Amino acid sequence: MRRTIATVSLSGTLPEKLEAIAAARFDGIELFENDFINFKGTARDLRVMAADLGLTIDLYQPFRDFEGMPEAQFRRSLERAERKFDLIQELDAPVMLCCSNTSPLVIDDPALAAAQLHELAGRAAMRNLRVGFEALAWGRVTKLYGQAWEIVRRADHPHLGLILDSFHTLSLNDDPSGIADIPGEKIFYLQMADAPLLSMDVLQWARHHRSFPGQGQFDMTNFLEQVPLAGYTGPLSLEIFNDVFRETPNRRTAVDAMRSLLYLESQVRQRLQEPAQSNARFTDRRASVLQRVELYSPPPVPDIMGLSYIEFAADESSAEAFDVLLRQFGFRRAGTHRSKAVVLYRQGDINLIVNAQPDSFARRRFEAHGLSVCALAMRTADPASAVGRATAMHSQRYDGPLGPHEQRVPAIVSPGGMLISFVSSALGPNGLYEADFVLEDEPGRSAAGAGLKRIDHVALGLAVDQLDTWILFVRAVLGLEPGESLELADPFGLVRSRGVANADRSVRLVLNVSLSQRTRTARTVSAGGGVAVHHIALSTDDIFDAVARLTASGARFVPISGNYYDDLITRVDLDDDLLARLRSAGVLFDRSAAGDYFHIYTECLDGGLFFEVTQRVNAYDAYGAINAPARMAAQAQGA
Amino acid sequence: MRRTIATVSLSGTLPEKLEAIAAARFDGIELFENDFINFKGTARDLRVMAADLGLTIDLYQPFRDFEGMPEAQFRRSLERAERKFDLIQELDAPVMLCCSNTSPLVIDDPALAAAQLHELAGRAAMRNLRVGFEALAWGRVTKLYGQAWEIVRRADHPHLGLILDSFHTLSLNDDPSGIADIPGEKIFYLQMADAPLLSMDVLQWARHHRSFPGQGQFDMTNFLEQVPLAGYTGPLSLEIFNDVFRETPNRRTAVDAMRSLLYLESQVRQRLQEPAQSNARFTDRRASVLQRVELYSPPPVPDIMGLSYIEFAADESSAEAFDVLLRQFGFRRAGTHRSKAVVLYRQGDINLIVNAQPDSFARRRFEAHGLSVCALAMRTADPASAVGRATAMHSQRYDGPLGPHEQRVPAIVSPGGMLISFVSSALGPNGLYEADFVLEDEPGRSAAGAGLKRIDHVALGLAVDQLDTWILFVRAVLGLEPGESLELADPFGLVRSRGVANADRSVRLVLNVSLSQRTRTARTVSAGGGVAVHHIALSTDDIFDAVARLTASGARFVPISGNYYDDLITRVDLDDDLLARLRSAGVLFDRSAAGDYFHIYTECLDGGLFFEVTQRVNAYDAYGAINAPARMAAQAQGA
Repeated sequence: MRRTIATVSLSGTLPEKLEAIAAARFDGIELFENDFINFKGTARDLRVMAADLGLTIDLYQPFRDFEGMPEAQFRRSLERAERKFDLIQELDAPVMLCCSNTSPLVIDDPALAAAQLHELAGRAAMRNLRVGFEALAWGRVTKLYGQAWEIVRRADHPHLGLILDSFHTLSLNDDPSGIADIPGEKIFYLQMADAPLLSMDVLQWARHHRSFPGQGQFDMTNFLEQVPLAGYTGPLSLEIFNDVFRETPNRRTAVDAMRSLLYLESQVRQRLQEPAQSNARFTDRRASVLQRVELYSPPPVPDIMGLSYIEFAADESSAEAFDVLLRQFGFRRAGTHRSKAVVLYRQGDINLIVNAQPDSFARRRFEAHGLSVCALAMRTADPASAVGRATAMHSQRYDGPLGPHEQRVPAIVSPGGMLISFVSSALGPNGLYEADFVLEDEPGRSAAGAGLKRIDHVALGLAVDQLDTWILFVRAVLGLEPGESLELADPFGLVRSRGVANADRSVRLVLNVSLSQRTRTARTVSAGGGVAVHHIALSTDDIFDAVARLTASGARFVPISGNYYDDLITRVDLDDDLLARLRSAGVLFDRSAAGDYFHIYTECLDGGLFFEVTQRVNAYDAYGAINAPARMAAQAQGA
Repeated sequence: MRRTIATVSLSGTLPEKLEAIAAARFDGIELFENDFINFKGTARDLRVMAADLGLTIDLYQPFRDFEGMPEAQFRRSLERAERKFDLIQELDAPVMLCCSNTSPLVIDDPALAAAQLHELAGRAAMRNLRVGFEALAWGRVTKLYGQAWEIVRRADHPHLGLILDSFHTLSLNDDPSGIADIPGEKIFYLQMADAPLLSMDVLQWARHHRSFPGQGQFDMTNFLEQVPLAGYTGPLSLEIFNDVFRETPNRRTAVDAMRSLLYLESQVRQRLQEPAQSNARFTDRRASVLQRVELYSPPPVPDIMGLSYIEFAADESSAEAFDVLLRQFGFRRAGTHRSKAVVLYRQGDINLIVNAQPDSFARRRFEAHGLSVCALAMRTADPASAVGRATAMHSQRYDGPLGPHEQRVPAIVSPGGMLISFVSSALGPNGLYEADFVLEDEPGRSAAGAGLKRIDHVALGLAVDQLDTWILFVRAVLGLEPGESLELADPFGLVRSRGVANADRSVRLVLNVSLSQRTRTARTVSAGGGVAVHHIALSTDDIFDAVARLTASGARFVPISGNYYDDLITRVDLDDDLLARLRSAGVLFDRSAAGDYFHIYTECLDGGLFFEVTQRVNAYDAYGAINAPARMAAQAQGA
């Protein structure tokens, strides 16, 4: 499908928007009227500028408050339309979007609306333009695509068609399946917008909180599937009003936009290729759709089997200080890189790599952000395919210099600049490290360390404008799925938190956004340039034993108030002995219907990084968000 | 009345909150449970800390999901209550707030609710504690204060009473006038919260968008008036959940909180003192209320009669450069200060003062913020009373050093540090300047200048956390009233804009907040340290003549796109000649039912300051917000 985007979706001046849209390889734009009104050139200037960038102007929008009006207003609106048609012709745009009337003057009479739109279409036809009629969710009379289609059908003019927008349909909880019954050639344009599910006025929701497909909670795949089934072969477009996008650097927004369409197309393609159930509608049409419409077909999402290692950027002196801390934390120095200033630390199945190699990617990260996580390595059966998926989804691959005796670990750049590396699962737990490292066995050190066994989750702090970017990135590129969005009360502002994980939960990331600039999370994000790992959670099968061992070796945990335990016992049914152990160890506790969660946090390193020790009991599937305020308050109150 | 505040209303750790609350001279606190849970000391530590700061703990809150439960849950909740009573006794708090049940298990049976609350009150009585029952707006069964009162009345226990919260009543559009019929001694606590009128889920509204009285749009005065009429003499409290307050420095929030109560009390006092209408309820009680309840009685809001002058902070070299610009702008150098490096510029009734005096307040502002407005001077009949009002409302007065031959101009410090000075209207248009300045008449310069006559408005850019602070400041201290809140689309993010003005519109300020860090407004605010004048609008009676004269003398205006005028004529009925003049001069146009508005903006100076030239026709009462995007896009696209 041709891919287009409305200029309102991006920040910047109109020329800047066009450049970002072209760089992300869109085919064309929907020109949002206000962008043109404030553009300092003429329509011709804009047409030439777009053409030079390889972009067509596919739609001019919006034309408001037209249909169903008293005669005097109708005549005036036709005059207004003629002035807009002058402009649209000059722009070489084929279609004008007319959205359903919100004026208090509108008359509730579909026949009148049809007759007036017929006349408008007639005017358009004289210039070989077309008019697309769209139902706004807050239209005064016409709110649903079914109503709009009924008016278009009645008007019966070849230059009048329907425009569909997923937001307007799904925000009203309307069923999109009727779309497939509309003749495809009468659908003139298709706008896709997702959104989080919010209980608020639909107009405010629409104007401020839409998002790209895959960033929100609507069923975009089901909606989109109906449209080619109807026979539509026109542009696939995005029209997103979002407060955060208005302030996000537009190059990134444009990449997100393209990624969202490619992801959505690939999902619809998959759905169309699935064997049709006997009771499915349009079983005959499903196969033929892919003959008529090109839907993106990238490599599949990688099957990720866990985190292979976490890599830290350091220099010589910070690596030494970190060495002390890691040993306190039960890690042993397990190997030295054959050709680089890189050390491997191990405990249980956890591999941490500290990279202090001069002139490396890691060193550049260290110089910009201090001691910090610079790469997450994921285990997968086919690293090359994982990179192929990522580049197909417009992520950049990363090819670092390869040292002697070093395995190539394919990698990509995540939003914000951290690497995601892919380690072949065929290498086994040691394969990669045997090739790259001189493995050591430290004498006099228990192999068990503190009993930490696996990486439970990695928590990232994100700038406000990175959250939607990351949600889409982890879904489209890594195949992780988001859980519910929570708000945590830090003493200095709210933090929004959302877990993402793969199906078997062997990879869990927690994405945290501080709405305030004054929280510790915000400071970590700021030091990281917009994206930073702020803590790493390591799991154990016996948290009390682990805490005892860690404390004995000098690790320091944030102290939890005794009041926390006094309150806990009023909320949760715990036996006195367990409560006493929690209190004495300073371990936090959460219980869901599925299981229990024990956890404890270390004090922060410089730069804000800290560790969490966790123990999951049964199928507990969250992150102890209820306890986050206790942790944040403890960190704010100091030891 | 005793004044208290819930700890949830402020940012910071609990000890920091208490210090801020005490510094703003509150009498006590409502302890929000989560603040205590995360506090690292004991109940006794907290009680001592509060007592040392002169604060009592007046309420412990909230106790949730208690009334109307099945027997098993009810018994468990009584146990939970006993643990909380242990704590509350230790805290020496007299009352626990129990809010209406939101659990899906609740049984819709007021008799059961009353019986269970009776038992809870009995337990409380054994410890000489009391329980206050409050209707949450999103309670599952009990949502209205009338329902809660009916349950309390039925329960009929001296240790059970009602707690009122203006948010829960006014957010549901419930009528507060029934409160006056409730026996005052059965009202155990009173929480006041204002809010902007938003169409959203009431729980989300309540948790994120409450504000202090006077910052929102509820009728706080009418609500509060009912409560002493009922005979209530207990604490007047604030319980505000607000995302922005969570990140605002808590000393300022606490001052705003106190100011909001003092302002509200003074309004209720005024209302009670007004002669009662014959049909008014409780005419007998109205007078006696003020015998029983102390309501704050500050000096009246000043009667402001216009802006006397605007003062700029400069140094020698920036003053020279600014001199060139002011002359281009039709100002003449009208006087030199008798004892300071201060120059007066004049045009029409406009007085601008450029202060480059070393070691002065202005110089310190210049050093911190560059060339910028450091004071707004308002004309009023009684400057001393204006300062008295301000200090009564917890603003700081400012007493600068007085030079020889210099009139004292009483002044106060506005939030963010700019001065508001008060000039006696008795001095007449020249009185102040004759005393302080050697007035000059520049030969060879037309007295008319460019025909600019008055200061139309002053636009301030505010950091996000300064908007509510300023709305309350201008209302409570200066007696200005806010108009509607608008959102303007800058190419790099949204700007929220709200005009405030006095009744005769001789003083108008526009308060702008950029939600994005990337707009020009945000950069100006940042340079100004959170509050900065970003433009000054000067009015003329003939904008075309003024623009011609200004352009001839070298002033540069932001160029407006021709597309703006092509669109304007489709929206507004204008004759061709006027449209041509607008287009040729680059003047923007807005029309309301009351009148027309012509305006044009200059290019920015360094630091972001610019001028607007305006002409109001008939009773146009706004600021041309519809044209702000054209201005902001033009500024972003450059000349």
